[in-house]
Amino acid sequence: MKILEPPALLERYHPAIEQRVRLFLESKPDGLYAMLRYHFGWMDCDGRPATHALGKAVRPTLCLLACEAVGGAWERALPAAAALELIHNFSLIHDDIQDGDQQRHHRPTVWALWGEAQAINAGDAAFALSGVAMEGLREEGYPAEAVLVIWQLLNTAALRLVEGQYLDLAFEQRLDVTVDEYLAMIARKTGALIEIAVQVGALLGGADAALVNQLRWYGRALGLAFQIGDDLLGIWGMPTETGKPVAADVRRRKKSLPVIYALRHSSPDDKAMLAALYQGHDSIPLDEVEVAAVLGLLERVRAQEKARDLLADHCARAMLALERAHLPVWARAEFADFARFLAERRS
Amino acid sequence: MKILEPPALLERYHPAIEQRVRLFLESKPDGLYAMLRYHFGWMDCDGRPATHALGKAVRPTLCLLACEAVGGAWERALPAAAALELIHNFSLIHDDIQDGDQQRHHRPTVWALWGEAQAINAGDAAFALSGVAMEGLREEGYPAEAVLVIWQLLNTAALRLVEGQYLDLAFEQRLDVTVDEYLAMIARKTGALIEIAVQVGALLGGADAALVNQLRWYGRALGLAFQIGDDLLGIWGMPTETGKPVAADVRRRKKSLPVIYALRHSSPDDKAMLAALYQGHDSIPLDEVEVAAVLGLLERVRAQEKARDLLADHCARAMLALERAHLPVWARAEFADFARFLAERRS
Repeated sequence: MKILEPPALLERYHPAIEQRVRLFLESKPDGLYAMLRYHFGWMDCDGRPATHALGKAVRPTLCLLACEAVGGAWERALPAAAALELIHNFSLIHDDIQDGDQQRHHRPTVWALWGEAQAINAGDAAFALSGVAMEGLREEGYPAEAVLVIWQLLNTAALRLVEGQYLDLAFEQRLDVTVDEYLAMIARKTGALIEIAVQVGALLGGADAALVNQLRWYGRALGLAFQIGDDLLGIWGMPTETGKPVAADVRRRKKSLPVIYALRHSSPDDKAMLAALYQGHDSIPLDEVEVAAVLGLLERVRAQEKARDLLADHCARAMLALERAHLPVWARAEFADFARFLAERRS
Repeated sequence: MKILEPPALLERYHPAIEQRVRLFLESKPDGLYAMLRYHFGWMDCDGRPATHALGKAVRPTLCLLACEAVGGAWERALPAAAALELIHNFSLIHDDIQDGDQQRHHRPTVWALWGEAQAINAGDAAFALSGVAMEGLREEGYPAEAVLVIWQLLNTAALRLVEGQYLDLAFEQRLDVTVDEYLAMIARKTGALIEIAVQVGALLGGADAALVNQLRWYGRALGLAFQIGDDLLGIWGMPTETGKPVAADVRRRKKSLPVIYALRHSSPDDKAMLAALYQGHDSIPLDEVEVAAVLGLLERVRAQEKARDLLADHCARAMLALERAHLPVWARAEFADFARFLAERRS
């Protein structure tokens, strides 16, 4: 099976997104902003310029594609795209502290280098900068009323994202989380910003309410599919492609979808074993034997197939929303490619 | 010497401010929002209703007074007042984590009860809610253009506040901080939000540019005076009034203004002693003998008098700005009372 190539649109928008985000971090004093320049990959921790990749920039890319797809000039939506990327990265920086993750994309995380206290500030600054980035919409000629609407949407999405972060951490303390609760959590943690990215792009491109709504449905389904895909990669991703150890999420006791499913559908014995293993102390990862036991248990309830079914289901919903949306052929194809890419990606 | 009573205006606006902030925290699910209801004092940590005081609510009070002083209806500025209080509290919640403070107003801090990871979320949620609170300005009939201006001001103030937080923590690692650097730090950490509170209130009240500017100068000077007053209380405040131990900030090695002054103006021997004491490990407080040594050293360079002079200087600047502002007599008197209260408060 061939490795899926990222769709061309990642390359189309990527340089402009990167340039726009840089705008708010360059020509700023070191210290606070140095942490952010490091996090975004434009600086090494010793202050030397670097050119690490920005990441997939899923949210701004979706925003710009939605804008272009409905007939807008995507360049005018760049302030919102940059704001989306800044909000996303605010949450990543805080998430790394919360999870105690020392590495991201093969580099030490901000807190691992500067300590938790300053990393909290780095995340807060990225959040505040998302508001500064948004101000650019006014200069692009959007009326104040429209800018306010966009700003409210982003703000609501940020709040839902934080709600999702809360639930994700709270679920770590529970063994009785249902799949529905889990889906409601990822709809906030991952879904909210992706859904709103598409909605904001469509609004800025001038789409009518019906089209905005169809694209929102696409974004909502895509967001869930994206996170379920992430959960699958966290357990069954190829280390050579993800850059993470085998069954990384099992090792660190992450209660992602397959485990939540298994906690409800395993035999009483398996359930007891899983519960015992996942109640252990966070900071001590599971060993090889324990990881193998969990993987065997997940296989007995076919947790991987179940998660793949759910992923396929949400991808199908995304595709259905696309079919119903009044879009030019090229745009529908690119949205569909993007969904397939996110669902089937290997890293 | 009599204890200064808080000016009447704290009581005039307080119930409305409290009610407005509650609006965004009540009728919300427990969990994330329970942490905030606890932090604001409306709930005990076990979920039972409580009525701890909101605190002085300095920022929203200044905003509403500025609005009323320039002839506006202060009730219409409540959404901005609530946003200011939410931003302030977002920074308090994160600050408590960063400083490792286990108590605030005689109650355990959010992180001390729920852990650092969830407390980060509580602060993030307060920040995001400040944006939600601001949306209310539109319902008060302010034009979208005006709401955008206010929102940009608050956003810039939030960013400067985070810059100040960064510098404050960074200064803890240095022994060569100058008084000017220190003032630039507190102008961000404390000053930015206070200055903008006055500016926003004046704008929402319909003041012309000249009046807005004069009031900004008042706010700027007041913000610095407020923080210097805080530094003085942290060392020489009466434990019976502050609720903190004697010389609390010396005990915890806080590098506030008097210490920064002493680090530059002491004799070589004293400087070496101070440097040695303040380089020790954060988590181990100074003992009684060490605290007494530092207090003696501060007295030798008259650090308290120096800080009081600086406080008086900034109060005078605030009063000068007031005199130049075209304000009704009652309003000028209340602004002046408020400045005196903040400068001379005992807790």
